[in-house]
This record gives sequence, C-alpha cells and structure tokens, in this order.
Amino acid sequence: MGAEQSKPAVNFEVGAFKVDGIGEPYFQMGPDTLRIPMTLHREARENLSRSVRDGAEDYTVNSYMFFQGGRKNRRFDTDINYVIFRQESYFNWLFGTKEPGLSGVINCDTGESILFIPRLPESYAVWMGPLRTPDWFVRHYGVDECFYSDEITTVLKEKRCSTLYLMEGMNRFSYVSTSAPIFEGIENFTIDKTTLYPLAVAGRVRKTDKELDVIRYITKVSSEGHRRVLLAAKPGMMEYQASSIFTYYCYMYGGCREVGYIPICPSGDRSKILHYGGQSAPNDKQIVDGDLCLFDMGGEYHCYLTDITSTFPVNGKFTDVQRTTYEMVLDTVHTVVNRIRPGFTWREARMVCYRALLRNLVEQGLLVGSVDEMYDAKLHRVFMPHGIGHFIGGDVHDVGGNASYWCWSDSQAKDIDWYDPDLEWCPLEKNMVLTIEPGCYYNDVLLDPALLDPTQGKFMVKSEIDRYRGIGGVRIEEVFIVTTDGCEIISDVPRTVTEIEEYMKNPPPDDIPFLDAF
Amino acid sequence: MGAEQSKPAVNFEVGAFKVDGIGEPYFQMGPDTLRIPMTLHREARENLSRSVRDGAEDYTVNSYMFFQGGRKNRRFDTDINYVIFRQESYFNWLFGTKEPGLSGVINCDTGESILFIPRLPESYAVWMGPLRTPDWFVRHYGVDECFYSDEITTVLKEKRCSTLYLMEGMNRFSYVSTSAPIFEGIENFTIDKTTLYPLAVAGRVRKTDKELDVIRYITKVSSEGHRRVLLAAKPGMMEYQASSIFTYYCYMYGGCREVGYIPICPSGDRSKILHYGGQSAPNDKQIVDGDLCLFDMGGEYHCYLTDITSTFPVNGKFTDVQRTTYEMVLDTVHTVVNRIRPGFTWREARMVCYRALLRNLVEQGLLVGSVDEMYDAKLHRVFMPHGIGHFIGGDVHDVGGNASYWCWSDSQAKDIDWYDPDLEWCPLEKNMVLTIEPGCYYNDVLLDPALLDPTQGKFMVKSEIDRYRGIGGVRIEEVFIVTTDGCEIISDVPRTVTEIEEYMKNPPPDDIPFLDAF
Repeated sequence: MGAEQSKPAVNFEVGAFKVDGIGEPYFQMGPDTLRIPMTLHREARENLSRSVRDGAEDYTVNSYMFFQGGRKNRRFDTDINYVIFRQESYFNWLFGTKEPGLSGVINCDTGESILFIPRLPESYAVWMGPLRTPDWFVRHYGVDECFYSDEITTVLKEKRCSTLYLMEGMNRFSYVSTSAPIFEGIENFTIDKTTLYPLAVAGRVRKTDKELDVIRYITKVSSEGHRRVLLAAKPGMMEYQASSIFTYYCYMYGGCREVGYIPICPSGDRSKILHYGGQSAPNDKQIVDGDLCLFDMGGEYHCYLTDITSTFPVNGKFTDVQRTTYEMVLDTVHTVVNRIRPGFTWREARMVCYRALLRNLVEQGLLVGSVDEMYDAKLHRVFMPHGIGHFIGGDVHDVGGNASYWCWSDSQAKDIDWYDPDLEWCPLEKNMVLTIEPGCYYNDVLLDPALLDPTQGKFMVKSEIDRYRGIGGVRIEEVFIVTTDGCEIISDVPRTVTEIEEYMKNPPPDDIPFLDAF
Repeated sequence: MGAEQSKPAVNFEVGAFKVDGIGEPYFQMGPDTLRIPMTLHREARENLSRSVRDGAEDYTVNSYMFFQGGRKNRRFDTDINYVIFRQESYFNWLFGTKEPGLSGVINCDTGESILFIPRLPESYAVWMGPLRTPDWFVRHYGVDECFYSDEITTVLKEKRCSTLYLMEGMNRFSYVSTSAPIFEGIENFTIDKTTLYPLAVAGRVRKTDKELDVIRYITKVSSEGHRRVLLAAKPGMMEYQASSIFTYYCYMYGGCREVGYIPICPSGDRSKILHYGGQSAPNDKQIVDGDLCLFDMGGEYHCYLTDITSTFPVNGKFTDVQRTTYEMVLDTVHTVVNRIRPGFTWREARMVCYRALLRNLVEQGLLVGSVDEMYDAKLHRVFMPHGIGHFIGGDVHDVGGNASYWCWSDSQAKDIDWYDPDLEWCPLEKNMVLTIEPGCYYNDVLLDPALLDPTQGKFMVKSEIDRYRGIGGVRIEEVFIVTTDGCEIISDVPRTVTEIEEYMKNPPPDDIPFLDAF
C-alpha cells in the first residue's frame, strides 16, 4: 500500500453509484446485487420534514434540519483506517452517501436537501481518483443542491433559515449520547436541539416500502449465506472458518462489503455464550463431532442489515437433548410469531415468549410447577438471559428504544422493565422490522445459583436439567416485518429438526457448488 | 444478535491462547496456522528495557515504563463495535494481548512485566464466557504479574517505582500525536514523557527472529492469497469479488481475522489510482477483458501484517504496452533490490529507484534526454507519484518515520526530503523489514500539466506516451528482510511476464482447488 501524507476524505467517481437513462440515480454494487433508487432517501427526507412540521412546537416556516455525516476513523495513531469507513446510520437513511466528512440540511417545508462536502485539493485525484464535484453529488445522490462545507453558514443565511433543528439525544440501546453538532457560524441561527432526535428515531423505526426492499434483499443474501455454512460445516472445522465462509458468501455473491456485526459462531458448550466471537473470543474453538453450532450472523448492504441465528448439529443429526431443546425454542418462536400484529406491544411479546419457554421446559420435565409462579420468580432468565428480539434496520440494534431487554449486568439487574409506555413506537405498527430470538441455554453460571435459590430452585428438576448440561444452548432468530394483520418472516433457513437434518443430508444441488464459480 | 446493556471489555477463555505441556504460553488461531510463543513479547520487553537503561538521561534504578492498550471503538452512537477490536500496535508488540481496556508496566532493570485488567462483574460471563482472572493473564500471556486497573497506583508505589516513562510523540506517517496516558494517582510518580517514544519506535523497527517468523508467515499466506486471486480473476468479475477472495483465503486458510489494510483492487484505467478501494471507492468496477489488475493486498496475523502488490492482465496475456510498462517496473524493482544491504540508506534507495524508472522510460522511448536532468526536474513524480516503499510490521506503514515519501498534496508539495539524518534508523540494518513498491502510471492529471511544463515537457515524447494512456498503471510491491549482506525477498507471487502468463495458463494443480475443501 503506497503511503501518503495525512489525507482527508475520499473522492472518487464510484461505479456503485450510477444514474440511469432518465437521470434517476441509484446504488448497485454489482450486476447481480440489488439496485436501490436514491428516491429511498428522498422519501425519508420528505417524511421527516413532515414529522417536524407536524410535531414541532411553534413551528416556523422555512426551518431546516442539519445532519452531520460520519468522519473517518483511524486506528490509534496510525494512518490506517479502520477497515472500511461506514456511514453513520441517520445520515445514510437521509442521504445514502458513502463519503466521510459530509453534512447536509433539509428544508422542513419542502424536503429540499443540500449536501455540504469537504473542499479537497486537486491533488487527491492521484490518490483517490477524479474529484467529485458538487454537481456529481447532486446527480448521483438526487439531492437538490450541493456546496462546500465552508459555505454552510452563507447558504443557510441566504436561504433565510428560520429555525435550525439539530440532533441531540441518547441512543437507548447503547446509552451513548449524541451532542448537537457545531459548525462555524452556527451562532447566527435560532437553534432547536430537542425536537429532531425523537422524530428521527420514530422515522427510522417505520420502514418505507423501499427500505423494506433493501432489508428483504440483505436478509435473503444472509439466509443463503447461512445455508452455505450449514452445508460447509463439519467436525474439525474452526468456528472462524464458518464465519469466513459466511462473510465471503455475502460479499462475493451479495455485494456486502460489511457484515452487520461481528459473526457470533460458538459451537458445543460455547453456544451458551451470548456474544461469543468478538474481540478476544474470536470464534477460535474447533468444532467437534456432536457439537451444536449456534451461528448468529447477518450481512449489510447500503448500510441496511439483518440478523439471523441458526442452530444445528455439526454432524447433521440432533441428539435427544439437542432436539428437545431445539424444539422447545422453535415452539417458543411460533408462539410469539402467531401473536404478532399491529397493536401488539413488545411488552406483551416478551411475556408470551418467556412464558412459552417456561411452559416448554415444564412439558419436557426440566421444570415443575405453575408457569405463572415461575414467571413471577423470573425463572426464564436462568434459561434465556437476554431479550426476545429488537428492531433492525440501519443498525443491528436499531433505534427505537430498547424494546424489551432485561439487563443482565449486576449494576442494572434490578427489576427493570425497559418498556416505556411514553415511546410512541411501543405498540407494533405495520412495516416495523424486528427480530425474534428466543433461546435456551444450560449455563452453570446461571443454573447453579438458581438451584440454590429457594424461590427459583423449587421449580427446577435438577436430575433432568443435568442431562442437558454441556450441550451449550439453542437460539433461533427470525427477522419479520409487521403486516396489516400479522407478520411476515423474511429470514429463510431450514428451521424444523426434520428440515435441518434433511437439508444437511440431501442439500438442493443449487446450494452446494457456490464456490465452484471460479 | 442478542442485545445487551452498555458492556465493558470482553473476557473469555480463548482457544487461540494456549499453554503447552511445559507451561509455555503461545498464540495459534487454528491447527494449521502459525504458533507464536509469547516469549516473542517477553523479548521485546527485555530489549526495550535495555534501551531505556542505556538511552535515558539520568536513568534511575527501578524505573518503569507504562503502556496503555487499545480501548473499544464503537460505531458512532450505537452499541455496535467496529467489526473486530484490534489491539494498538505498540501494546501488541510488548504484550500480545487481544483484550481491549488493558494497560501494562515493564520494569526497566529486569524487564519484569505487570498487566492491569478491567474489573468486570461476574455477570459478563453470560455474555462473554468465563471471566479471565489475573492468573489467567499471567499464564496465557507469560507476564510476571497481573492486577486490576484500579490497582495501578498501589502496585507501582509498592514497587517503589522511581521514574515512570510514558509514551508521548508523533507518528511520522500519520502525523497523529500520542499524548501521554493518564491514570488515577499518576501524580504520585516522577514522570518522563520524552525518553520512551523514540526508543519504542527504534525497537519496533528492528525485528527479532521471532517477529520475522510471524512476518514470514503472514507474507506466505498473503502470497498464496494473491496466487488464488490471480487464478480466480476473469473478465466480468467485480473488483470487490477479487478482494473478497483474498480476504476469504487469508482467513479460512491462514487464520487472519483481519487484513492489514483495505484491499486496493483497481483494474483497467483505475489502476492508476493509488489508494483505490477504500471508503467511497469500494473496488466497484467490473473487470473487463484487456484490463490490467493492480491488486495491493495483505493479511494480518497476531497484529503483524504484510503488504504485497501484484499486477497482471485479467485475461492472462499482456498487451505490448502493458508488457513494456510491467517490465520497466520490474527492472526498477531489481535495480533497487540489488543495492539493498546494511548501511544503504533509504534516501539512496529512493534515488536509485526513481532514476531506474526514468532510465527505463528513456530506453522504451517515452522520454528522451539525460536521466540526471530529468531527475532534477522531478519527472519521476509524473509517472510514479508516490514513495518507493516503507517499513512494515505492526502497522502497514510501520513506525520508524516516513522513510522516503514525497508528498503529493498541494499544501505539502514542496521539495521536501522526508529523509531525516537524525533518525538513527536511516541506514538500513539487518532484520529491518520493508516493502519496495515501484510503479508506473499514466494519469492524465499528471501527464497533461507536465507536458505543458517546459522544465518537464521537454523530455516527454507525447506521441509515445499517448500510446500508453488508458492502461492505468503497474505497481509491483515486494516485501524484504535486510540480511547481513543484502536482502531476502519474502513475498512469493509470479513476477516476470512469462511467469505470470504461464501461471495463469497452467496453474499448479495444488493452487487451484482451495475452495473444494468443503
């Protein structure tokens, strides 16, 4: 890699951003990957403008919203970028741009949009290719105007911006706060920092049809990736090799430059570890005969992503305890899915989910007693110490609030209901996209204290539970879109025990030779 | 992926870190990947301790060095980690640890080492696996002691630390400064912020035999990856697909969780763009018949990496102008490589390299006149607007100063010689590892102004040069280790025109079916 002196943002005539014969811009990574019209982002801007007009107190005509895109992110003190700049998700939602260092404004009356781009020296053309002009940005992203970043104040003054709405708020999943952005000359404007953030959150939660197309696409590609891993996995393979097959498939055949999150690929007893695979636990166990594989992986395309979990026996045949556990979890999925429809709340879903799991554990003889009482004793947390699912979209735990999560950390492990009735998204609505991910794990760290706890241990059949220890756990994660009268599951991997065993034994011919393409 | 509340560092009993039968810890990702003894890092600590004892002014007995490891890096306001935490390179060099949020000290007299780890609640075991204890760190990383981060001051006081050396300085490649780290209680110690940084730089530049083993390994794996891409590439393929094959190969077969930098995979006319492939130019051109592919890609293993560039015709057959350009660049590589030995300076290498390229351009009729005069007129910059190579190791542009780079940016495009005679590394020494990467590009952005410039244009044969425009360019990048009396090239891909054409026509059987393994 040729070195260069500290260089600002990339500018290049990118093949993936194209303009069709009638001037409509779109994004498409490769010939066989999804074509995404830039009107997706125009619609998002118009919808958000309407929300601000309707939702702002004392709305004044000719107000603008201001958004700051992601900046480059270097590795410590080096000149190496974190592999791939990834646009910030709000900015991608509204503008769909892939360059770092941009900002943009949207007129709240008209939805009119203006991008502001860094002013780069001509010389960067040698390193990064022909400089993108403001005109390039207008044509390829379908915004109305484009100026340089040092012109923001001049432009907004000329436009007689009455109020400038800024993003400021807290991400309820990460608990990371976003502070209002600053630019030179911002003191010239009447600022509102409270209106925009919750409206933007609400906007991202309700997907448009064009957004659903992208999520369907990435979910289809990722489902195919899961299927290929199912066929490729065999005893002796390292977990990270399974991960590499998935990311390779999504990139090679789906144009997915990134995955939505670090693939979680535990096997055997490690499948009880919920966020396995990241950082210092790099999917580095060898998968051995008899192991269950619990693979939680999703790709990403144009900054939209998905989140699918498959659990299967590496040798193609469930043992009795593996099968029983799997079918308890699958029944739990079905029980929740059957209830989902507009108006259903995630709080209800949570209750349905955990109680279904408890009922299954009773039916299989691991627990004994009243499901109501077990639920009150929070016994479900011993077997399923995580939430039941989450929004997805631009982030894997998409904005919209922490829909259901009970937190396991000591400092927060009070009896918190994350459900917040004030958040307008709580009752499900058509076109929301979520995952449902029940799991059942046999984790000594949780089982042993519970067995000793009189309020929980009295329901637990130790001799039965002990038979299941060592298999790790099962999680099944489906992605669904809320429809008018129910939901549509868009993840598509073999799900029943029979389907999985049959698929691994007799895979459809088309699914096997994906690697022979070259 | 199951959501969680804001969670600190990962802790998990990682399979990749193991202890052998006699208690020696090592790192090994998979059964077929390199085993790296943790004594590599012990040696680095001992060497650096000696440097401080020898190099510090007014050295006092029982001094310590303090290092802070990398922290987690999240994507904007989300709870999503930038895919994969990657340890900071100084910290990896000295400790080899993969967990974020650590710090460590080294006794300058004895090399004795102490790690400090975050104190995590037991509950993280559910999300990340069994908590790693201080004892685990001692056993698996071969450090002498391990305490919690909140014990740093107590421990250093008990140890009667006389002077505490901190890292503070500027990375001469990125121009990013590192400020001295701070911890609670640091005011209790006598601090020295000036001694350590340059000694650490000097230490990283001179590789030990154990480090060379790692660099040899990753260079071998990456060479294999390049070979597979050479065989897989064909007209119609997207550039990013070539990139995905490389990263897949390195991960699947080499255990490389990461690549050393964003793969640069331009084809055709785009191969003149030096840092193609990143961010908004995501290798998104379709490769067509007749294109040259210029693929600059390197893998990474245990935070050591490599950097190799291959240029080849996608259809397996060079055209005349492609072949001529390729052979000019290859001759330039050989000319420099033949001169490399201890004592040779990078300033000399630069001169040899650029003049060799100019000589070749004269021999092929693109230039006419005296090479001396062309060199003085900086005509080489028109055809090769970048440096001739760089150190590699823990970073792709490894520390050690900006050995040779002429900077193309307007603001810095003065007649700067980056060579700094005060930097002790300047004469090459045995066991330094560098790349040599001559290139020759036909870039209108550079050619057209040069043709109009009387001091440069007078040497240029426009009619000949015009025949070459449109093919983009050629770069050949080899990795070498300086030996006692020369250098050893460790990159291993087909290099001559004949070798490349023959390899693509009749690949060795073993190189083809790497994807049939599953």
